[in-house]
Amino acid sequence: MEPGDLRELLEQVQAGNLGLDAALSRLGNPPAVDLGFAHVDLHRRERCGFPEVIFCEGKTCEWILSVVRQLVEAGQDCLATRVSAEQAESLAASFPHGRQDRVARTFWLPAKESGPPVGQVVVITAGTSDLPVAKEAVVTAQALGCGSELIADVGVAGIHRLLRHRTRFAGADAIVVVAGMDGALPSVVGGLVDCPVIAVPTSIGYGAAFGGLAPLLTMLNSCAANVVVVNIDSGFKGGYVAALIARRAHKQI
Amino acid sequence: MEPGDLRELLEQVQAGNLGLDAALSRLGNPPAVDLGFAHVDLHRRERCGFPEVIFCEGKTCEWILSVVRQLVEAGQDCLATRVSAEQAESLAASFPHGRQDRVARTFWLPAKESGPPVGQVVVITAGTSDLPVAKEAVVTAQALGCGSELIADVGVAGIHRLLRHRTRFAGADAIVVVAGMDGALPSVVGGLVDCPVIAVPTSIGYGAAFGGLAPLLTMLNSCAANVVVVNIDSGFKGGYVAALIARRAHKQI
Amino acid sequence: MEPGDLRELLEQVQAGNLGLDAALSRLGNPPAVDLGFAHVDLHRRERCGFPEVIFCEGKTCEWILSVVRQLVEAGQDCLATRVSAEQAESLAASFPHGRQDRVARTFWLPAKESGPPVGQVVVITAGTSDLPVAKEAVVTAQALGCGSELIADVGVAGIHRLLRHRTRFAGADAIVVVAGMDGALPSVVGGLVDCPVIAVPTSIGYGAAFGGLAPLLTMLNSCAANVVVVNIDSGFKGGYVAALIARRAHKQI
Amino acid sequence: MEPGDLRELLEQVQAGNLGLDAALSRLGNPPAVDLGFAHVDLHRRERCGFPEVIFCEGKTCEWILSVVRQLVEAGQDCLATRVSAEQAESLAASFPHGRQDRVARTFWLPAKESGPPVGQVVVITAGTSDLPVAKEAVVTAQALGCGSELIADVGVAGIHRLLRHRTRFAGADAIVVVAGMDGALPSVVGGLVDCPVIAVPTSIGYGAAFGGLAPLLTMLNSCAANVVVVNIDSGFKGGYVAALIARRAHKQI
Amino acid sequence: MEPGDLRELLEQVQAGNLGLDAALSRLGNPPAVDLGFAHVDLHRRERCGFPEVIFCEGKTCEWILSVVRQLVEAGQDCLATRVSAEQAESLAASFPHGRQDRVARTFWLPAKESGPPVGQVVVITAGTSDLPVAKEAVVTAQALGCGSELIADVGVAGIHRLLRHRTRFAGADAIVVVAGMDGALPSVVGGLVDCPVIAVPTSIGYGAAFGGLAPLLTMLNSCAANVVVVNIDSGFKGGYVAALIARRAHKQI
Amino acid sequence: MEPGDLRELLEQVQAGNLGLDAALSRLGNPPAVDLGFAHVDLHRRERCGFPEVIFCEGKTCEWILSVVRQLVEAGQDCLATRVSAEQAESLAASFPHGRQDRVARTFWLPAKESGPPVGQVVVITAGTSDLPVAKEAVVTAQALGCGSELIADVGVAGIHRLLRHRTRFAGADAIVVVAGMDGALPSVVGGLVDCPVIAVPTSIGYGAAFGGLAPLLTMLNSCAANVVVVNIDSGFKGGYVAALIARRAHKQI
Amino acid sequence: MEPGDLRELLEQVQAGNLGLDAALSRLGNPPAVDLGFAHVDLHRRERCGFPEVIFCEGKTCEWILSVVRQLVEAGQDCLATRVSAEQAESLAASFPHGRQDRVARTFWLPAKESGPPVGQVVVITAGTSDLPVAKEAVVTAQALGCGSELIADVGVAGIHRLLRHRTRFAGADAIVVVAGMDGALPSVVGGLVDCPVIAVPTSIGYGAAFGGLAPLLTMLNSCAANVVVVNIDSGFKGGYVAALIARRAHKQI
Amino acid sequence: MEPGDLRELLEQVQAGNLGLDAALSRLGNPPAVDLGFAHVDLHRRERCGFPEVIFCEGKTCEWILSVVRQLVEAGQDCLATRVSAEQAESLAASFPHGRQDRVARTFWLPAKESGPPVGQVVVITAGTSDLPVAKEAVVTAQALGCGSELIADVGVAGIHRLLRHRTRFAGADAIVVVAGMDGALPSVVGGLVDCPVIAVPTSIGYGAAFGGLAPLLTMLNSCAANVVVVNIDSGFKGGYVAALIARRAHKQI
Repeated sequence: MEPGDLRELLEQVQAGNLGLDAALSRLGNPPAVDLGFAHVDLHRRERCGFPEVIFCEGKTCEWILSVVRQLVEAGQDCLATRVSAEQAESLAASFPHGRQDRVARTFWLPAKESGPPVGQVVVITAGTSDLPVAKEAVVTAQALGCGSELIADVGVAGIHRLLRHRTRFAGADAIVVVAGMDGALPSVVGGLVDCPVIAVPTSIGYGAAFGGLAPLLTMLNSCAANVVVVNIDSGFKGGYVAALIARRAHKQI
Repeated sequence: MEPGDLRELLEQVQAGNLGLDAALSRLGNPPAVDLGFAHVDLHRRERCGFPEVIFCEGKTCEWILSVVRQLVEAGQDCLATRVSAEQAESLAASFPHGRQDRVARTFWLPAKESGPPVGQVVVITAGTSDLPVAKEAVVTAQALGCGSELIADVGVAGIHRLLRHRTRFAGADAIVVVAGMDGALPSVVGGLVDCPVIAVPTSIGYGAAFGGLAPLLTMLNSCAANVVVVNIDSGFKGGYVAALIARRAHKQI
Repeated sequence: MEPGDLRELLEQVQAGNLGLDAALSRLGNPPAVDLGFAHVDLHRRERCGFPEVIFCEGKTCEWILSVVRQLVEAGQDCLATRVSAEQAESLAASFPHGRQDRVARTFWLPAKESGPPVGQVVVITAGTSDLPVAKEAVVTAQALGCGSELIADVGVAGIHRLLRHRTRFAGADAIVVVAGMDGALPSVVGGLVDCPVIAVPTSIGYGAAFGGLAPLLTMLNSCAANVVVVNIDSGFKGGYVAALIARRAHKQI
Repeated sequence: MEPGDLRELLEQVQAGNLGLDAALSRLGNPPAVDLGFAHVDLHRRERCGFPEVIFCEGKTCEWILSVVRQLVEAGQDCLATRVSAEQAESLAASFPHGRQDRVARTFWLPAKESGPPVGQVVVITAGTSDLPVAKEAVVTAQALGCGSELIADVGVAGIHRLLRHRTRFAGADAIVVVAGMDGALPSVVGGLVDCPVIAVPTSIGYGAAFGGLAPLLTMLNSCAANVVVVNIDSGFKGGYVAALIARRAHKQI
Repeated sequence: MEPGDLRELLEQVQAGNLGLDAALSRLGNPPAVDLGFAHVDLHRRERCGFPEVIFCEGKTCEWILSVVRQLVEAGQDCLATRVSAEQAESLAASFPHGRQDRVARTFWLPAKESGPPVGQVVVITAGTSDLPVAKEAVVTAQALGCGSELIADVGVAGIHRLLRHRTRFAGADAIVVVAGMDGALPSVVGGLVDCPVIAVPTSIGYGAAFGGLAPLLTMLNSCAANVVVVNIDSGFKGGYVAALIARRAHKQI
Repeated sequence: MEPGDLRELLEQVQAGNLGLDAALSRLGNPPAVDLGFAHVDLHRRERCGFPEVIFCEGKTCEWILSVVRQLVEAGQDCLATRVSAEQAESLAASFPHGRQDRVARTFWLPAKESGPPVGQVVVITAGTSDLPVAKEAVVTAQALGCGSELIADVGVAGIHRLLRHRTRFAGADAIVVVAGMDGALPSVVGGLVDCPVIAVPTSIGYGAAFGGLAPLLTMLNSCAANVVVVNIDSGFKGGYVAALIARRAHKQI
Repeated sequence: MEPGDLRELLEQVQAGNLGLDAALSRLGNPPAVDLGFAHVDLHRRERCGFPEVIFCEGKTCEWILSVVRQLVEAGQDCLATRVSAEQAESLAASFPHGRQDRVARTFWLPAKESGPPVGQVVVITAGTSDLPVAKEAVVTAQALGCGSELIADVGVAGIHRLLRHRTRFAGADAIVVVAGMDGALPSVVGGLVDCPVIAVPTSIGYGAAFGGLAPLLTMLNSCAANVVVVNIDSGFKGGYVAALIARRAHKQI
Repeated sequence: MEPGDLRELLEQVQAGNLGLDAALSRLGNPPAVDLGFAHVDLHRRERCGFPEVIFCEGKTCEWILSVVRQLVEAGQDCLATRVSAEQAESLAASFPHGRQDRVARTFWLPAKESGPPVGQVVVITAGTSDLPVAKEAVVTAQALGCGSELIADVGVAGIHRLLRHRTRFAGADAIVVVAGMDGALPSVVGGLVDCPVIAVPTSIGYGAAFGGLAPLLTMLNSCAANVVVVNIDSGFKGGYVAALIARRAHKQI
């Protein structure tokens, strides 16, 4: 709360125009639910524009169900990522209306029907094996309300495969490029467009790829000025930030 | 050129409505000037929304002057980064109207007066030593036509220093967070806002910072979903992508 | 044995006031039991204030049982960590009174009932997945006789979740902060308190977390002066050192 | 401010017993001074028990002098580390009463005469070349008000050199062990005492020491349970945390 | 298409000597088939002298079969590498004439009978465990139409084993040397011959071999000037480039 | 063959005193058997003082049996290391007289009964988990004909455990020290003796031990001048070199 | 010498048709000159097709001059690389006819005039800063007798710059691609041609380029099958192997 | 002191046959001199067979002189390594009889004339640039009383250079092999001899040698069983351990 607002609030209290409980509520901490093993951040939607997302790796089905329930009860959208087969089954049993994508390993339970998509995110992969990460990006961008399109397997060793789709991606608000091995694709895409490119390195490849380290370094050193990078295999972050950019480009000001 | 456009062009040629030179020019390669030691990409402004930027490290003054001249003659804006003292002097002698920032190590020679700033980029640093990198981001964002603001030395070890400036940065279109050492600041900022945060690790620090590797890894693993990362010390890229986002948010559609 | 004490002892021997066996015993090596595959250090309690702790990974059930028996016979407390399911079963069969914590993977067999807790250790985690490591810290601190409290899932991406618990941890004698991914939480906690903070990086996370390397480096580079670091996933060491600090703060002098 | 306190404050405002300015001051942000290039955290002494410490590397003399002046004007102690020869000269000119240690590269300007030392910190080095880092630890511990003692060059290759000083360090409240190369000394010391050992790896050594990485890893993997680690060459942190422990052990409760 | 050719084409169109469809086809993109999950590059054979090769790791049997079918229908040779047992079975069911090598994990389905081998590639291994990688090189070189020979287990610890085969490899057009552990063999071979040596590090070995990093670095630093390196375990690339060199040495000019 | 010897041989040929076959045999290559998948170096015993040793990882039972048979037929000792359970069974079936050690994972089939041991090798471990590696060293040293002794679990955190065994190891010809985690033991042992110490890092430990990298670096940086290092987990090399030293110390000159 | 040849030689000796000195000379070691600090390998030209090349870093001018003289006296070509300014001056004084290239840092002293160039090597750089490494490749390829061409600064961020030169490089016998930063160019070039591509990573770039590690990994993981890699900044090796390939492609068979 | 001896000593004290001072001296700590900045270990010669060696890097001339004086006064040999030009001058002024080797950077001041050399150490280098490290090994081996020989620049790229010297090194008691770049030489030498080979990696080389990391890993993974490794550039340790082995091989038993 800003100093000016604070003074005004105190003046209202002093003047008897504002009750103590109302004042306390406005001064109070943002809401969070303590489940013992987790603090569900019910204020994140307001602060960050999207509710807390559940990263499922290393969590029990019970823990995950509890958090989903908190979000549902609070009337918020619920997105879960890295959902294992067992977790998916558990979620399906309790929330049959949730939408599951087994390639993307996601679970998506919107609070209400979404409106028409806002803005356009394009997701491009260098190879076929990058598809699971790319689909996680697609699902996430859609959950944030954006339109999205997927162009798969257009790596730089056959550059004409990419160039023929140029009109499909040149008009995007943001592009997510998913690549393993040499990770060269984001630099080429970045040099063809005027929007931000979010590069997602994948752990695909062998030998000196070192679990994604090679494409990660490639992308960080991209000679194209509009390329930014997220964690290895983090299709979620790629889709999330691309959607933030696209939504902002089309919001009313 | 798209298939449909191509057919139309050929029809015009066939019909005698378009001369060979005009047709060739429309079919031709985008412009680039071969200086022997460099190919100046005069088409980048059209493709990417900003002309080629000159990275000055490891280049002779003569090389740099030649490239600047090509851009100037083409009527394009010229931004140079990592300008050494000697290079700065050489540039000042030839282009006295260029604006130099000795902390940011930049040279900026706009083709014409810029209009009013579009969108707002906020640059935040964790420490005082991060200032040169942060200023490079500020200069770059301004060169791309955005408004920008700098909040310095508000690292997480005194979290109230950051929180008191919340209204200054919560409304930004994009935020650049520059931090060395533990690189923890972008995660905290990311959790407070609904716009993308571009994290720039710096090589500031000693020992196990390993030349910026520590904050780089921290930022890639940020638990905030809206944080993306660029290369160590790359204030330029941070400011560049933030400005792309901000411009897009305020463009006419 | 100090030079002064040594002279005194020899004088007593010379004077016939001290028998040879008694003298030898006082000069002799501290006790240790050689089991062939292990040397149980029965003197560690005296030297270090706590008996030898058994790290169970890579050991057979027989080896572990033998060492536990040595400690029990010597009337010493027995703490075992990284206890597998099979080892837990084996220990339960032989020592049914031992207390097992399956999340913490610990086995705790005190020599006698502990007195009231001395000092206060608070254990804080950034995420839910950090719980096993955090619980190992809690069990260890309690085994050393300290009071302990656990605050889970208050990572920096929702900083208000941490701040609302400030009074619970600001009065601690020592704080253990357990975090994976970006490992940013110890720096924030460190800047809010006047006691030492022991940071424990976890191997939670994926991609560029590199098995805990990322939070390890973050914590080593913490901009808060009161943060020290232990090995990845070493909840044991975190709880151990925190308890040493807390016990010392409340001992009679 | 806690919920209970907040309600009480509002009641006083409501009742007219507390003026608006006083209420605002009690609700307000902790003090920090914005110098443009730095935010001096004048509240850190209250929160953390010691004022902000100035890390001088990569800062201009002017920046450093400004911050020192802020602390002096606020009546707070001032400690600066990593002071270069040029910075030392500049500080000496403005603050002739400051105490400089050229081996430790420190500047120390207490707000008032310190009282008798509280608690005992022992600093031990493995080699002669570790002295600058060790002295930084000594100066820091003294600045925090502790007694301190230095035992130099007692590395494990001649273990009797360490053992003969056992009585000098076995009674310490906390021990700082500074070592490069193999970094083996903290494990040996840790096994001989019942207080925490803060291990400081140094960048001394050559070849496969890799700038301190080797002793850093050694210390993180120490088989002694009471060993914690700080950044490479960070004598400051070693002395700081050791002093926190020692002060706490002797404070009135 | 070159500027000269382009002008000529347009002149033909202008003169009515070339129809629009024919012109468009000559101007058009090279062929590629979009399967949704993959873009099969049917133009690679023309550009690069060999069709697209299918890397099977991380792909479903269905995906692989679809791509194989595309190549077969286009009348192109088909080579697949890293074929798992399950994938091999699936391929055998659909393409019983394909040749499978279970040690090399390859599937080879030539479009037509190959002619006599052109040029000579020798594959040498340091140890017995390097055989799978070496055989992948042999199969690849043969698929490109070259003669090939395998000399196994002649590592440098018994240098006479290599020297006795000198006449077998000294006349080769290119040599592939496959080695794990110390990776020293390529340097020795390189110093004995006048043709290029393609070094393939393997992940064989333990401890400080770090999954092939050790031999990779050895080979990159080879003191023999004619040694080049490919990815860890990449027998495919080793055989491919060796065959390119051998074919070129014997082509008609 | 030396120039002088060569001239003498040729003189004998010229003089008709040496037949062509005999001359060729003396000039010829040392013996090696080419099995297609392996070249068994039957000359190594003569050159290096011990026959080729079989490293079994990644090899089929058939390959191993073939090589063992070659050695047996040549009347040479046969030592195999890293023998899996399946390989052990296969070897036992064919060579029931071979001695297997399941902890050390070795197979030892001497050509004839060994004589009395020559020289003394002591193997020391820091922890109980280091035993498999240590036993590999013991078996190897014995295979080379040396006496050997094992002292287990005397790591530096309880230094008295080591010191009490000083007379057992101070008289050794060479000492093998096996340690994981901090790897500090070789430095301490090295400082107590006048013989070479061969340090063997193990992959025991967790977190920042990074699969043995931590103790490897520690040992390479040992401050004791008589410490040399072999590969991670390579008990074989440790025992081998220690035995070479011990044999040489007791050979007749 | 092969067994058959050896028998024939001995028969001639036996028959008195070959003198001892002649026989010894044919059996003898290949020539090498021992200078105490160096063994000049005068046989390398015969074995490997090119004389020993002098790597000048870390050598005194005297050492270098001595080796050059040995080569000149033996009538062999002499190429020196990494020639410092001081070394260049020293070489110029003694061998004024040598050709020096100050950008490439090379010294080239052919034994006789070279004939017309054989084969064609193209050297391509991603950036202007890669020129010194690229020129070393050009000089080396020419020293081996090949034609060569340099195309500079055509990195992938402006892909049309590369594509417009396609006819200049598509017909080469081998291509050397020199790139720092993201190192993406070799993959793109590799996908456009049917000859081997030798990728040379450079240490150009900053931050996460880590002295050339980033482009090195990129290139090792190239998705183009015809890309091989040499050491960081090793323009020499790039040019050397490219020339070996080109020479072989045009030699008479 | 052993238990038996201790009892005997106490009996003598009890019986009055041994005075207190004599008893204390025999029970006392080994001698060490505390200079404040250093503890000179005057007992090391007795324990380890050679006095403490002074590593001069990072030490002042005064510190070094003081330690040298202590050793001289105690009648012990004095060896100093890594002596800078300034330190060399300072040592020459105070100890004009000391022998300095400027290539090896050593200072050697024997307490008395050495006798005839015992045993034979051979030092072999791969390249000319490895000479300084090799000479440090030679000087050290000689200081320990061994004969030594140097064979320079016989790297594996011209294997005949090494093989022609086989008789010079095959009879050695221990061989030190010094190599940078690919570090392949120790494996080849190891396969030719029956004595231990101590491999010393050097930081010579560029690019992916990473300051000696490449040859270090090569050597640790050597396929020859008799190769052990010391720190990068540590000619001292190489020569030291080789001399220990050689001395032991020729000592009277």
